Amino acid sequence: MAAMTVAVHGFDLEEFAGRCARAQARMAVDGLDALVVTSPPNVRYFTGFATEFWESPTRPWFVVIPRAADPIAVIPEIGAPAMSTTWISDIRTWQAPQPEDDGVSLLASVLAGLPREHGRVGWEMGREMIVRMPIADFDRLRAETSGLEFVDGSPAIWSLRMVKSDAEIARIRHICQLASDGFDALAGLLRHGDSECDAARKLRGELIRLGADNVPFIAACSGENGYDQIIVGSRDRELREGTVLFVDLGATFDGYFCDFDRNFAFGKISDEALRAHETVWQATEAGIAAARPGATTTDLWRAMADVLEAGGAAGLNVGRLGHGLGMQLTEPPSNMPGDDTPLVEGMVMTIEPGMEYRPGKMLVHEENVVITADGCELLTRRAPREMPVIT
Amino acid sequence: MAAMTVAVHGFDLEEFAGRCARAQARMAVDGLDALVVTSPPNVRYFTGFATEFWESPTRPWFVVIPRAADPIAVIPEIGAPAMSTTWISDIRTWQAPQPEDDGVSLLASVLAGLPREHGRVGWEMGREMIVRMPIADFDRLRAETSGLEFVDGSPAIWSLRMVKSDAEIARIRHICQLASDGFDALAGLLRHGDSECDAARKLRGELIRLGADNVPFIAACSGENGYDQIIVGSRDRELREGTVLFVDLGATFDGYFCDFDRNFAFGKISDEALRAHETVWQATEAGIAAARPGATTTDLWRAMADVLEAGGAAGLNVGRLGHGLGMQLTEPPSNMPGDDTPLVEGMVMTIEPGMEYRPGKMLVHEENVVITADGCELLTRRAPREMPVIT
Repeated sequence: MAAMTVAVHGFDLEEFAGRCARAQARMAVDGLDALVVTSPPNVRYFTGFATEFWESPTRPWFVVIPRAADPIAVIPEIGAPAMSTTWISDIRTWQAPQPEDDGVSLLASVLAGLPREHGRVGWEMGREMIVRMPIADFDRLRAETSGLEFVDGSPAIWSLRMVKSDAEIARIRHICQLASDGFDALAGLLRHGDSECDAARKLRGELIRLGADNVPFIAACSGENGYDQIIVGSRDRELREGTVLFVDLGATFDGYFCDFDRNFAFGKISDEALRAHETVWQATEAGIAAARPGATTTDLWRAMADVLEAGGAAGLNVGRLGHGLGMQLTEPPSNMPGDDTPLVEGMVMTIEPGMEYRPGKMLVHEENVVITADGCELLTRRAPREMPVIT
Repeated sequence: MAAMTVAVHGFDLEEFAGRCARAQARMAVDGLDALVVTSPPNVRYFTGFATEFWESPTRPWFVVIPRAADPIAVIPEIGAPAMSTTWISDIRTWQAPQPEDDGVSLLASVLAGLPREHGRVGWEMGREMIVRMPIADFDRLRAETSGLEFVDGSPAIWSLRMVKSDAEIARIRHICQLASDGFDALAGLLRHGDSECDAARKLRGELIRLGADNVPFIAACSGENGYDQIIVGSRDRELREGTVLFVDLGATFDGYFCDFDRNFAFGKISDEALRAHETVWQATEAGIAAARPGATTTDLWRAMADVLEAGGAAGLNVGRLGHGLGMQLTEPPSNMPGDDTPLVEGMVMTIEPGMEYRPGKMLVHEENVVITADGCELLTRRAPREMPVIT
């Protein structure tokens, strides 16, 4: 696979038509007359409608994908001009906000008008998905849509989204490379006496400068010779001699995420921390080597866990050692016991081993790979084996 | 009210205890034994737990507020170290992700253990709220929690969140002032030949440099003498002579948003567009003058709509002329007919008149105000009456 990167926004329209056709093929298998999506990534996945207006919780949006017809957007009037620039041609609107009936009766009438074969409509009711509308309205719609059962459509949606197209992979590769540049630059921008908050601001500013569209996720967490958690950062805590700074990053380009982290040592850290760092670095190597078609996510977890256990890992509270990646910071599947998802070409995964080498002292690494025909391609620039030292 | 701004992160713990006490007082009125919150703003509102980790949809989080006891966090183990730094002391965890039972049985046991008086638990089931967990799990929990009815708790939550404390207002004032500086700087950074995407990138970078924590929302939309929509921007469309560029902005500081826009003329625009701009500027004046305790959101809408109608407004597809503002880009109430919410001291509102002066040609203005004892205080720096010209 050529290491192509793209730096323009927008997919070819065929991309969306292909996604819908694959969804419809799966709907036939699952016995669904339609799929209804409401959440930002799924609406974007099927329509190409890209906006940050989702930050406003006021109005629900619906896209109905019938089993044998083109999608229907059932949306607030404010969105019609923009939706009409996508490949969607059937757009029904209401004048939102209208709290007493925000699209419910309009959507009910659209669903009532669909040809029925199975009497079942798939919604984002399952794993790692939400239905973005008030549940009170969902309950009302469910009660009023007589003869149509609402069932979990998330297995169908994840079966599509989990395997990325070349165009999707190119975007993830682009943001991973750009973020690798950002981390390299950060090493030169950090100073003793900075706070976690300063580190996050420097990285965020650098990424925007380099061409990231946005940076929805940074966790900058620090502690003496290790950190006690990896999700709440950007506090006013000072970075001083002996501190390890962990920075986890989710930046976006054209709607696709990178998700990887880097560690920085402020001056001299303990030999024990350096040994743990070497173990985690080696566990990453093992994870990358194990990432290939035919292996499962559980095999991937085992390859990393073996190295961590041999290196004396005392524990870890994150519950898994990596996950899928794409339109969201994390997506199914999970690298963990019991997940057992077979890896196939086109899946983008994080390789994310971490260990608590003593209570309250964690070290975590993360890289992003795409599964290829015979192994995987590293999308990020591999973290250095020696932790960069901020002097 | 003094125009105090703050630039440090984190609220006094009393802020959260006060919010919980007010929620409990309201729960007595509404007949609720507990309130359960799951969504980022509401979890943060009651606990102070601030993270960007919400970008990962994998794990649900629950905070239970009993009617007569301190809150209980029922959360993934990954979050325990960080949650323990907040004022919450009762923290129950499970090892997530665990798709077959992601917190459901643990939460059910917590709810089953609560003292019962009303047999009702309030959830984020209503207006402008979502329950952030798979609906399939919510349905299961609802079926298994025998003797407890799940009802809409959103009126109770909005009754609290709609009226801001001095500490909340100080944060919104800070980000509004900082964003006003950012817009002023943008005028000097824009160039003919830039794209909408370039404009968004320049503003985002400048805001991070100035001290915004993040910039979740920018819509940069342009068109000849006006624009056809205001929610999907950042396209590769070129800004050239005769273009009006609209930039709407939601930046954050310490978890609170600004939400206002500015317009820029690229060279000379039509007299008709300039007249429409003057109308919208005057409608903003009328909105600010009408924003005072005793008036309603509908009065506020009427004051702006009168000016727009007198100025020849042909239409507008956004459904309202402003809204509440705080932890989210938009919050209840809405400035529109039928909303009829009385304005009270401490409410932060956007004043957002806009008009389509001919089909496909819109002009929209927006300022942010806080209602005071006898009127309102402008939190943003008032937009210039003459549209800034990029030469």
